[in-house]
Amino acid sequence: MAEPLFDRIALIGIGLIGSSLARVIRRERLARRIAIATRSPETLERARALGLGDAYSLDAAEAVQDADLVIVSVPVGASGSVAEQIAGTLKPGAILTDAGSTKGSVIRAMAPFVPEGVHFIPGHPIAGTEHSGPDAGFAELFEQRWCILTPLPDTDPQALARLTNFWERCGSKVDIMDAEHHDMVLAIVSHLPHIIAYNIVGTADDLETVTKSEVIKYSASGFRDFTRLAASDPTMWRDVCLHNREAILEMLARFSEDLSALRRAIRWGDGEALFALFARTRDIRRSIIEAGQEVDAPDFGRHVVAHHPQTPQPEEG
Amino acid sequence: MAEPLFDRIALIGIGLIGSSLARVIRRERLARRIAIATRSPETLERARALGLGDAYSLDAAEAVQDADLVIVSVPVGASGSVAEQIAGTLKPGAILTDAGSTKGSVIRAMAPFVPEGVHFIPGHPIAGTEHSGPDAGFAELFEQRWCILTPLPDTDPQALARLTNFWERCGSKVDIMDAEHHDMVLAIVSHLPHIIAYNIVGTADDLETVTKSEVIKYSASGFRDFTRLAASDPTMWRDVCLHNREAILEMLARFSEDLSALRRAIRWGDGEALFALFARTRDIRRSIIEAGQEVDAPDFGRHVVAHHPQTPQPEEG
Ligand SMILES: NC(=O)c1ccc[n+]([C@@H]2O[C@H](COP(=O)([O-])OP(=O)(O)OC[C@H]3O[C@@H](n4cnc5c(N)ncnc54)[C@H](OP(=O)(O)O)[C@@H]3O)[C@@H](O)[C@H]2O)c1
Ligand SMILES: NC(=O)c1ccc[n+]([C@@H]2O[C@H](COP(=O)([O-])OP(=O)(O)OC[C@H]3O[C@@H](n4cnc5c(N)ncnc54)[C@H](OP(=O)(O)O)[C@@H]3O)[C@@H](O)[C@H]2O)c1
Repeated sequence: MAEPLFDRIALIGIGLIGSSLARVIRRERLARRIAIATRSPETLERARALGLGDAYSLDAAEAVQDADLVIVSVPVGASGSVAEQIAGTLKPGAILTDAGSTKGSVIRAMAPFVPEGVHFIPGHPIAGTEHSGPDAGFAELFEQRWCILTPLPDTDPQALARLTNFWERCGSKVDIMDAEHHDMVLAIVSHLPHIIAYNIVGTADDLETVTKSEVIKYSASGFRDFTRLAASDPTMWRDVCLHNREAILEMLARFSEDLSALRRAIRWGDGEALFALFARTRDIRRSIIEAGQEVDAPDFGRHVVAHHPQTPQPEEG
Repeated sequence: MAEPLFDRIALIGIGLIGSSLARVIRRERLARRIAIATRSPETLERARALGLGDAYSLDAAEAVQDADLVIVSVPVGASGSVAEQIAGTLKPGAILTDAGSTKGSVIRAMAPFVPEGVHFIPGHPIAGTEHSGPDAGFAELFEQRWCILTPLPDTDPQALARLTNFWERCGSKVDIMDAEHHDMVLAIVSHLPHIIAYNIVGTADDLETVTKSEVIKYSASGFRDFTRLAASDPTMWRDVCLHNREAILEMLARFSEDLSALRRAIRWGDGEALFALFARTRDIRRSIIEAGQEVDAPDFGRHVVAHHPQTPQPEEG
């Protein structure tokens, strides 16, 4: 049995990400003790009932005392105030990280509060589902997924190595890049897809010529693929849009420009242009499947799962 | 054992849809004989090797001889020429239907060739995957899915009842509507999602600041959900865009208008507007799951399937 990597880990925020961390830390024995803090008594009680930690508190400042690793997993708009709360009780030599989906804004919000001697290394696990809260987490969430760390120029290499090791023991592969590049990459691979999904579901919801019940009945023909992303947590996504504004607006501008060209091709009946666009997008999917970031069951195996309830379902939790 | 519904069924086109029909017709014994025709010798040989029918031909006119039910499953741009080819050999009293994703254009293309005494009832099974060809089909494709029939004003009610019964025996639920309404509904639930998916994958592919390998690595954060639709057959989707142009352009205009409002909210940091939009789209997904058109495994169970290859996989076939 390997030695625990940390004596005490504090998890601030115990939703999908925080509770998945709690579960994998426990399973892999990555810490001797897990201290949990969250904002509301309800969520704290739920975490306690699920047995996610060893100590529970509504006071983040209390939870981080004596912690060697502090992981903040709250909506990015709350990062600054959490940093402010815990600044006074962070242990010298501790590593402070987060899981926020934007990185430039988190650094701007948190860094000013981080005391000398604490290693602040922002991070972002590229893993998630559309569900929220402590019940939604599961220990396997990070397996085979990438985790991006965006260290600051003066980050201690040993602390970085320790945090890298932590994420690898959670099952992740770790990439290092600067925060600005992270925000650009995530704008296209994550933020734009979510925004587009929210938008198309909103458009469908507003139509007078097509009823909502028709949209629901016939959704298997394409629409439903967007609804998973559009069912994600509104607070988290509001914060992402507010905190990665520049990169998102740039990607939206490009997307809209491309869409105008596509509209023009449809309007003018330019079959060749349409075929050319529709043909070049296939090999991206093939590459994603080869990279192990997607499963190749046609339709994700949904058609069969839906009809044969006796088919063994992948377990959650 | 129920009597076969038809003595002889002819399938013109034996790709994903045609071959799924062949398989379910055989499994449910819906016909005594299945005649298959397709355009290319390669596809015909594959259909023969898979044992999908009882007779095989490269000549659609030959295949429909003596058939009581003829189902045309080819890209919608080819419907007219297929109708022209088979017009002379269709049996009086036969039912002629199709599976095309657009209906107004198919009626305009096929109806002029349909001889007196043949019951032409256009149809569209709302079921599919991103895969094509005779190997991609499976008998369960239509189960629990809707099939829309768009009869013409003078359609014989008995023929309509027989075709409805056929689709029900394939596992589908049948809806009847006029072609114009079908084309509007499908523009939003299917055509727009596919076009948007193709567009976003194209946008990502063109970026200079983010590499293709980064898009692939981090695709689990949202992007990959679009790639399934964007991996669909380019010929089919070119034809859909060319043949449902008006309805698609209307939906694209609305989508773009809504997206402009969303961009404005991001640009001006209007968190309330963003939250309001992101919050109202959730219950559509819940309704889709309740309607049995989607499975509720978070992440479609992809995270678990991807790591535990021993997890029993839904069977295909
Ligand atoms: N969900 C994903 O797919 C995903 C993936 C990668 C990264 N992330 C990032 O991970 C972070 C957490 O996401 P999540 O999905 O775990 O969220 P979640 O399930 O909604 O949980 C959020 C947690 O943050 C707390 N919280 C919410 N608002 C707060 C505030 N104003 N001040 C202090 N605490 C607050 C919540 O506390 P109470 O419940 O007690 O109010 C809860 O403990 C976010 O920054 C998100 O961008 C998410
Ligand atoms: N895929 C879906 O998700 C889906 C769902 C509902 C409805 N549909 C509709 O169903 C129809 C068939 O789609 P599919 O997915 O089955 O397509 P597919 O797998 O690509 O098969 C197409 C079939 O049509 C034949 N074909 C192609 N071009 C032709 C032409 N110019 N003239 C005559 N035959 C031609 C092909 O013959 P060869 O291989 O011999 O060339 C093949 O037999 C389309 O109208 C589509 O809109 C598709």
